[in-house]
Amino acid sequence: MKRFLFLILFACATLSTAAQQRIVSPQINPDGSITFRLQAPKAVRVTLTGDFLPADGSEAAPVEMVEKDGVWEYTTVPLKGEMYCYAFVVDGIRMLDPSNIHVTRDTNTCFSVIILSRDKDDPGYYYDIQDVPHGTVSKVWYESPTLGIVRRMTVYTPYGYEKAGNKTKYPVFYLLHGAGNDENAWEELGKAPQILDNLIAEGKAKPMIVVITNGNPAQEASPFVQSQQHPKAPGAAPASMADSFSDIMNYVEKNYRVLKGAANTAIAGLSMGGGHTFQITANHPGKFGYIAPFSAALGVPAAPGAQPQQGRRLSLAEGLAANPAYAEKVKAVFAAKPRLYYLAIGKDDFLYQTTVQYRAWLDANGLPYEYHESTGGHNWRNWRLYLTDYAQRLFK
Amino acid sequence: MKRFLFLILFACATLSTAAQQRIVSPQINPDGSITFRLQAPKAVRVTLTGDFLPADGSEAAPVEMVEKDGVWEYTTVPLKGEMYCYAFVVDGIRMLDPSNIHVTRDTNTCFSVIILSRDKDDPGYYYDIQDVPHGTVSKVWYESPTLGIVRRMTVYTPYGYEKAGNKTKYPVFYLLHGAGNDENAWEELGKAPQILDNLIAEGKAKPMIVVITNGNPAQEASPFVQSQQHPKAPGAAPASMADSFSDIMNYVEKNYRVLKGAANTAIAGLSMGGGHTFQITANHPGKFGYIAPFSAALGVPAAPGAQPQQGRRLSLAEGLAANPAYAEKVKAVFAAKPRLYYLAIGKDDFLYQTTVQYRAWLDANGLPYEYHESTGGHNWRNWRLYLTDYAQRLFK
Repeated sequence: MKRFLFLILFACATLSTAAQQRIVSPQINPDGSITFRLQAPKAVRVTLTGDFLPADGSEAAPVEMVEKDGVWEYTTVPLKGEMYCYAFVVDGIRMLDPSNIHVTRDTNTCFSVIILSRDKDDPGYYYDIQDVPHGTVSKVWYESPTLGIVRRMTVYTPYGYEKAGNKTKYPVFYLLHGAGNDENAWEELGKAPQILDNLIAEGKAKPMIVVITNGNPAQEASPFVQSQQHPKAPGAAPASMADSFSDIMNYVEKNYRVLKGAANTAIAGLSMGGGHTFQITANHPGKFGYIAPFSAALGVPAAPGAQPQQGRRLSLAEGLAANPAYAEKVKAVFAAKPRLYYLAIGKDDFLYQTTVQYRAWLDANGLPYEYHESTGGHNWRNWRLYLTDYAQRLFK
Repeated sequence: MKRFLFLILFACATLSTAAQQRIVSPQINPDGSITFRLQAPKAVRVTLTGDFLPADGSEAAPVEMVEKDGVWEYTTVPLKGEMYCYAFVVDGIRMLDPSNIHVTRDTNTCFSVIILSRDKDDPGYYYDIQDVPHGTVSKVWYESPTLGIVRRMTVYTPYGYEKAGNKTKYPVFYLLHGAGNDENAWEELGKAPQILDNLIAEGKAKPMIVVITNGNPAQEASPFVQSQQHPKAPGAAPASMADSFSDIMNYVEKNYRVLKGAANTAIAGLSMGGGHTFQITANHPGKFGYIAPFSAALGVPAAPGAQPQQGRRLSLAEGLAANPAYAEKVKAVFAAKPRLYYLAIGKDDFLYQTTVQYRAWLDANGLPYEYHESTGGHNWRNWRLYLTDYAQRLFK
C-alpha cells in the first residue's frame, strides 16, 4: 500500500510542478546564512528583496542575484534567528519563491517566508513550532450588536484548555493589529500562537487565552473570508472599533472560561491597534491591568462641538490639550493603577514623535509607565519582539 | 482619527508594493468571464495556466496572454461558478498573480485563487463565504498514543455549538485527505467549512462536527507547522493511519459534544483517504453509518505470512482474492448495514479501474452501495462536488 501511495503522490507532484526542475530554496547553511535560488534561464536580471537585508524598513533595497546554468543565486551573511520575508524581482516583476511553499500575506502583498529557529537564544526560536504542547487556534464568528454585523476573530486557547474542568479559568489577553491588517495578522505575521506555546512551555508566560480581533469596524473578516453580501466600504461602520469593543469582551466572557478583573485582563495593539488600545482603555478605566500600545498611532477624538480642523490633523499633544475631558479619561486609566503600562517603539518608527509627545504628557502628569525603545522601525520584527517580552510580564 | 489612519494605511501599502503599478486581476466580468492581467513590460512571452481552461487534469495546457502597454491580458469564456486555481508563466517561470492576495497550496505548489460565486445554482456559491451563520474552525493538537506523537487536526463545529448547552450534542463526520495533502487541504482546497455553513444555513445539511485529520502517520502537522525536532521521514511511523485512527475518535468523543452510534457517525476520504476510509471502516465494522470513498486508492493489506510480491502491486481484485480474511472484514462493514455507502469517481480518474474492480466485487457479493460517476479526473473540483452532495445525505 505504502509504495502504491508513494506512486500516487509522485504522480500528483509531477502533474502540478510541470517541467520545473527541483531546486532547493531557501537553503539554510551551517553558518546561519541563507542561500536563495531561482531557476530562470531566460531572465536578464534577477534581484532579491527581503527583510534580512540591511534596512529597517518594511522592504529593503534589493540585491543582485548571480546566474549560473540558468539558476540565479544569492547567499546572505550569517543571520540571527528570525522570521524573514522575501521575494524575487525578475526583470522588474516581483514574484514569490516557487520552491518555497511557506507564503504569508501582509495587507495587499504576499511574501515567501523562512524562519531561522535553531538557536534558542535568538527570537526566531520562539516564532517556530517547537516540540512543546500546543494551544488551539480557532477562527470564531461573533455577533457585534454595535456594528450590526457578524465578525471573525482568532482565539488562542492554551494547551490543556479543553481537558481542564469547568472550574479552571484563564486570564485573557486582547491583541490588536494595525491598519491594513486583520484577524489573521498576529497569527501569521506576528506568530502569536508559537510565541505563547513556547513561552508557556518554558514557564516564562502564564497559560492565557489570546483574543486576536479584527480592528476594521466595517469589515466582517479578512479579505476573501468576507461575505460577498456585505461589501461595506471602509468608513461605513456605525461605530468605531473602540466603541464596539465591548461586544468582543462580552462574547469572550460568555463563551470562554475567563478569569475576570484587571489582574487577569491584558491588552496590546500595534500602530492603529495601539491607538485602539489607547481609546479602548480610556473607555474602560480599571478594566485592563496590563496595557501596551506598540508603535502606536495615538489620536484623541475631537471634543464635542469642537471646530473642525482645516487641512491638518492635531498632534497627540494638541489633541490632549484641545479635549480636556478626554485627557481626564486617559488619566482615569492610570488612576485605576494598572499593573503594567508598557510603551514600546523603534527609534526609526515614523510614529516615534507621537510616543515622545505621549511620554512628555504622561511625565508632566506624573502617570507611571514603562518605556521600551528598540532599534528599527514600524515593522513586524519589532512587534514580535515586543509581544515576546510583554507576554512574559502578564498576570504575574 | 480615521483620516490619519488612512494615511498610515496608505503609507504601509506604498512601502510594501514598491513601484508596482496597481492593475486589477483577476476581474470578473458581467458575463461571468474572467480577465487576468499581469504587468510585465520586459517579458517576451506570458502564458496563463488554470483549471478553468478546457482540461480535466490538475493543470491544463497554458494559453497565450496578449501584451498591450506592458500589461499582459487574457479573458476566459463565460465560466460556471466555481473555485478556480491559476498561475502565470513568464518566460518559462511559473509565478502567482501579484495582484491577487488569495493564494492556496496543493501539496508542494501554490496557486492564485478566485471563486466565482454569484450564481446560487452553481457550485461556486457553496465554496464562498456567504451572509449566513458561520461555524468555528479550529486547529487542534491531540495526542496519538499509537503513533507516539502529538498531531494537528482541523475541527469544524457548526454555528451555535459554543452557545448550545452541555446537553446539545452533534453528529460527527470524519473527512480524510489524499496523498501529499494534510489537515489544511479540505479547509483550503476543499472549502469544507463554507460548504457546511452554506448547506446548514439552507437546511440542506444537518448541523454536524467535521473532523479533518492529517492522514500522514509520520507527520505531526502540515509542513512548516511541523516541529523542527520531529523531522521523521515518511514511512517511519510505527502504525498505519487506519490502525491509529482510534486515537482520533477517542479524542473527539472525549473533547466534543458528540452523538454516538452509527446513525451519527460518518466518514469520507479522497484518493489515499478513500483507501484509509476503506481500511478504517474494515477495522471498525458498525462504527460508521455513512461511508464514502471518493476517487479512492483502494488497497488490501497483504495476508499475514503471504509471499512478498515481486515487482508489482496486486490490483484490488487480486488483493481481495489473496487475503480472504480481509475480504471478510470488508463484508462485515456491510453486514452492519451502514445507512449509506457512497462511491464516487470521475470517468477520467487514473484510479477509475480500481473502483470498477471494487464495484464488481461488491456486486458479486451482493453488498449494496450507491455509485456516483462524474465527469473529469482526480481533482479538487470533483471532490468539492462529492462533498457538497454527500454532506446533504448525512444523519437523516
